[in-house]
Amino acid sequence: MSTTKIPLKKVNKMTYEEFIQCFGNVVEHCSLCAAAVWRERPFHDAQHIASSFGDFIDRLPTSGKEGILRLHPDLAGRLAQSGQLTSESTREQKSAGLDNMSEEERQRMSVLNKRYKDKFGFPFVICARENKKDAILKGLEERLQNSQQSEAITGANEVKKICRLRILDLVNSDTQSTQSPL
Amino acid sequence: MSTTKIPLKKVNKMTYEEFIQCFGNVVEHCSLCAAAVWRERPFHDAQHIASSFGDFIDRLPTSGKEGILRLHPDLAGRLAQSGQLTSESTREQKSAGLDNMSEEERQRMSVLNKRYKDKFGFPFVICARENKKDAILKGLEERLQNSQQSEAITGANEVKKICRLRILDLVNSDTQSTQSPL
Repeated sequence: MSTTKIPLKKVNKMTYEEFIQCFGNVVEHCSLCAAAVWRERPFHDAQHIASSFGDFIDRLPTSGKEGILRLHPDLAGRLAQSGQLTSESTREQKSAGLDNMSEEERQRMSVLNKRYKDKFGFPFVICARENKKDAILKGLEERLQNSQQSEAITGANEVKKICRLRILDLVNSDTQSTQSPL
Repeated sequence: MSTTKIPLKKVNKMTYEEFIQCFGNVVEHCSLCAAAVWRERPFHDAQHIASSFGDFIDRLPTSGKEGILRLHPDLAGRLAQSGQLTSESTREQKSAGLDNMSEEERQRMSVLNKRYKDKFGFPFVICARENKKDAILKGLEERLQNSQQSEAITGANEVKKICRLRILDLVNSDTQSTQSPL
């Protein structure tokens, strides 16, 4: 994948439209994050881009964090089963083994997802690339015990992890030392 | 238009997906606003929906307000000329007479829009339905004198006016008195 990464220097020269095209979905379906973060350029490296997105998410009011969670699809849910996820989500859910569950596991995931959404009013979000399906099912059960306020923050922190990994997939920081001042 | 409006009662019974479908673009290209506001239902009337969106925009950090502005198209800009605006923006820009400018007016608008964007890093946004083209050109010249911080707030307030009018177009509050408790 690294061969297709974008050099940091190129990121820092992007127009706003190019930036949105490239980073508009690093937070799933929420291009406002990229639109807000654009003001922070020039970026020092891919981590700097990721921390700018993270800081923006942290500064959102709770309703905004919840909104970001609502823009996410259910894990192994209807969209996954009908192949309608974004390409990023498809890859991530697959890496956790969520495309390869027994009927029993799928049922359990479905019941827990519904219970979670009914309690909190937003879907369960977890960084699928940092967890396998068993850990995800366990996490769902545990997090169901939390308060709404703390789940909005926990969920937003998972969004930040997903976002960071998506950015590291996209950007090559290796040119940092030869980067011309902007 | 009122014959096609959605009764408030129906709005309050919408699933999240239906709500996003209906209100996802009342803030141009920024479905996060609708995703965040969904938690506020049941709504008492259309004004209550509008004030919920307004409150959310107000609570965004400055970078978020600027992000919302960046998601807006230039007034009478490239997208308008190539027919690529959202249907809402097309109607609004037309109501201000922006689809019917002399070559001289178009040139002036284009120069001022560029100067504004170069200075602030986001496009000039004004509620086109509350202004005609002469007032818009005058507003552009005047607002060019402001600071970045104050323009983010002024722009966000214009977004709130646009949003409110879009919601009043969509929702019929007349059923309020017969609304069943939810």
